[in-house]
Amino acid sequence: MSAHILPKVVIIGAGFGGLSSAKTLAGAAVDIVLIDQRNHHLFQPLLYQVATASLSPADIAAPIRSVLSEQKNLTVVLGKVTAIDCAARTVAIDNGEHAIDISYDYLILATGARHAYFGHDDWEAFAPGLKTIEDATAIRHRLLMAFERAEMTTEAAERDRMLTIVIIGGGPTGVEMAGSIAELARAALAKDFRRIDPRKTKILLVEAGPRLLATFPEDLSAAAIAALHRLGVEVRVNARVNDCDAAGVTIGDQRVGAGTIIWAAGVQASPAAQWLDVEADRAGRVKVAPDYSVPGHDNVFVIGDTAALTDAKGIVVPGVGPAAKQAGKYAARVIIARLQGQAAPGPFIYKNYGNLATIGRRAAVVDFGWIKLRGPLAWWLWGIAHIFFLIDFRNRVAVAFNWLWSFLTYKRGARLITGTSPTGPKL
Amino acid sequence: MSAHILPKVVIIGAGFGGLSSAKTLAGAAVDIVLIDQRNHHLFQPLLYQVATASLSPADIAAPIRSVLSEQKNLTVVLGKVTAIDCAARTVAIDNGEHAIDISYDYLILATGARHAYFGHDDWEAFAPGLKTIEDATAIRHRLLMAFERAEMTTEAAERDRMLTIVIIGGGPTGVEMAGSIAELARAALAKDFRRIDPRKTKILLVEAGPRLLATFPEDLSAAAIAALHRLGVEVRVNARVNDCDAAGVTIGDQRVGAGTIIWAAGVQASPAAQWLDVEADRAGRVKVAPDYSVPGHDNVFVIGDTAALTDAKGIVVPGVGPAAKQAGKYAARVIIARLQGQAAPGPFIYKNYGNLATIGRRAAVVDFGWIKLRGPLAWWLWGIAHIFFLIDFRNRVAVAFNWLWSFLTYKRGARLITGTSPTGPKL
Repeated sequence: MSAHILPKVVIIGAGFGGLSSAKTLAGAAVDIVLIDQRNHHLFQPLLYQVATASLSPADIAAPIRSVLSEQKNLTVVLGKVTAIDCAARTVAIDNGEHAIDISYDYLILATGARHAYFGHDDWEAFAPGLKTIEDATAIRHRLLMAFERAEMTTEAAERDRMLTIVIIGGGPTGVEMAGSIAELARAALAKDFRRIDPRKTKILLVEAGPRLLATFPEDLSAAAIAALHRLGVEVRVNARVNDCDAAGVTIGDQRVGAGTIIWAAGVQASPAAQWLDVEADRAGRVKVAPDYSVPGHDNVFVIGDTAALTDAKGIVVPGVGPAAKQAGKYAARVIIARLQGQAAPGPFIYKNYGNLATIGRRAAVVDFGWIKLRGPLAWWLWGIAHIFFLIDFRNRVAVAFNWLWSFLTYKRGARLITGTSPTGPKL
Repeated sequence: MSAHILPKVVIIGAGFGGLSSAKTLAGAAVDIVLIDQRNHHLFQPLLYQVATASLSPADIAAPIRSVLSEQKNLTVVLGKVTAIDCAARTVAIDNGEHAIDISYDYLILATGARHAYFGHDDWEAFAPGLKTIEDATAIRHRLLMAFERAEMTTEAAERDRMLTIVIIGGGPTGVEMAGSIAELARAALAKDFRRIDPRKTKILLVEAGPRLLATFPEDLSAAAIAALHRLGVEVRVNARVNDCDAAGVTIGDQRVGAGTIIWAAGVQASPAAQWLDVEADRAGRVKVAPDYSVPGHDNVFVIGDTAALTDAKGIVVPGVGPAAKQAGKYAARVIIARLQGQAAPGPFIYKNYGNLATIGRRAAVVDFGWIKLRGPLAWWLWGIAHIFFLIDFRNRVAVAFNWLWSFLTYKRGARLITGTSPTGPKL
């Protein structure tokens, strides 16, 4: 390598993991190329609030170029990865016009996950999941249109079906979605219809396992159920969805007609393992070494939701934003140490700063490990933490304002039916 | 009509005109049905700021149901008009599922206008216009993607083409769009690319007539041109676009390659005249009587952008929001007077409170008739007037905050490429 050419670090994905790597490498003598198929970083933990009409997409997204504008050793490339050649050390991307090869000395894959349907991919059309802005606005469209259709129909059975919402999956996304939809129906929409009473909307949260929020302590799961009950959400645990179509779901043997079905039941990693042709676990995640490198390719790192790692203390690193951020920083430090000929940092140890989930107005559960909280205090902490972690000042003010406004008025600020024509084809 | 059944007023369209009629009828002993094909009222004068990434759709839109929630004599129906039967006094609508007939005693048509291509409908695919939220986010997508493609391409000619933006039509929309795009390129995007310099973007505003802002006094047209020149916009008047395709436009005999083409050149009224089978002018507007009723159908009123009227003082009522509001209020008062057996109000007289157009940061032109303004004072007035006329408190705060933030940082708050996959098919 000549003295004039800097080592090239290619980062794929500008989520929590990729951005964290990029920022950690800001001062290093490297040339960074950050590739993403989107022009924006997305704060996914609040995406359900876009789906339920509380926030606008731009409130929780920031242009990647703008976030990293001042980082002179970095170039942003908009494109979709199609292949990786570890021997030639190139990433093939498609930018919509051309196929382009980008070479690397070090590669960090932080390509995240999509929702998974466990062999029922045909359910996706009926039960959309929530990972992108388009997912969120599509769910918002379905949800708001169901109330419109209920108001319009003259058939009682169809009205009841349209006012039934099924959420599949009792993890944080499912719980937060159910709580937010309940408040949308019971408060924001309550007075806005003439023929239906949105407060009578039936909201069903279905979980295959024995309890909600399986990663939280049991008493917080119970607190979440109690909070959901207060909002009128019907929670079914140990309940398996056996079928799903345009008109509803089959839970166990019971048929439930539904106007809106939302999938929050599972994720599948991005195809990183296929691109690299390496071993993956059942969820498609690459089994990485303790330093997040890929066995057999020590200049390639896989981090975040698309990596499977049990850390040096025996903790399975969870697929959450804070873990991705820590991994991103760590992988960048491994690269810096190698470039500077220094000893590698010690093996990765995940720091769990806490788990948080909110269940509507003034109810949340927070598990810091050393202390567990529920109720209004947990809710305030949840809100402050989320505003604090938003990517930039504008996002923070926009989200804070929208929350304050909703808190005071019980209204929703982004109640728009957009996208495909609202009076177009059937849902 | 029995004593228990109230006269039924059907209003089609919840724009400035329809909402104004609905609110004026709030205290009247009538049953109102307000039909719109969208669930939201849209503040169209600021739509160009959604297209240029300054504002989010929800900042300038409000759910119709929510706006009129407290008005107990009104029902909102989401649906698209397919026909009107003046003999049977019914409106046929399609709500996406069913065809429904809604009967009326009085009908107010406030269905607005779409952009018109003067016999070149095939141009729409290459030169989109700006009337709906989807139009605005589609233009935002094209505009932002053009910079991405310019950054990516290795061919100089293609780069120059992608950095050329042509706006067709020199009315307020075209002028405001050109100014806003110039500031997007020169300020918000300036530092965010590595291979291109967005400040070198070529922005061309093309007007077929002899001057910009033809409805303003001549000296304000000249001021607008001067302000656009300061922003680096090239203005061509007396210039006719003779062809338009995916790669650019032909202006007179000159071929200009362009990555983005925006249509701001003309409007065509909604099909109200066809529905009613009555006489229309060349722009498709219904020629209404001095009280906005339709000749031959004195219980049917057509108002706003879809009506053609010269008022009692000989002024041609313009197709702008304030005129639609005045007409909406007036038509409602005519109906109230008839129902109460009172004398009709005098013939409609349009009150022109002023014309405003902004040309980027701290430049605008304002014509109040009795006084003309330009420069920073005009710009502040323009901003305050627009915030004042936004439909609700939330919109006002959201727009004010986004403007303040952009003013201080020179950034744009809604720089998102969403919708069709950003790395998908060619523009």
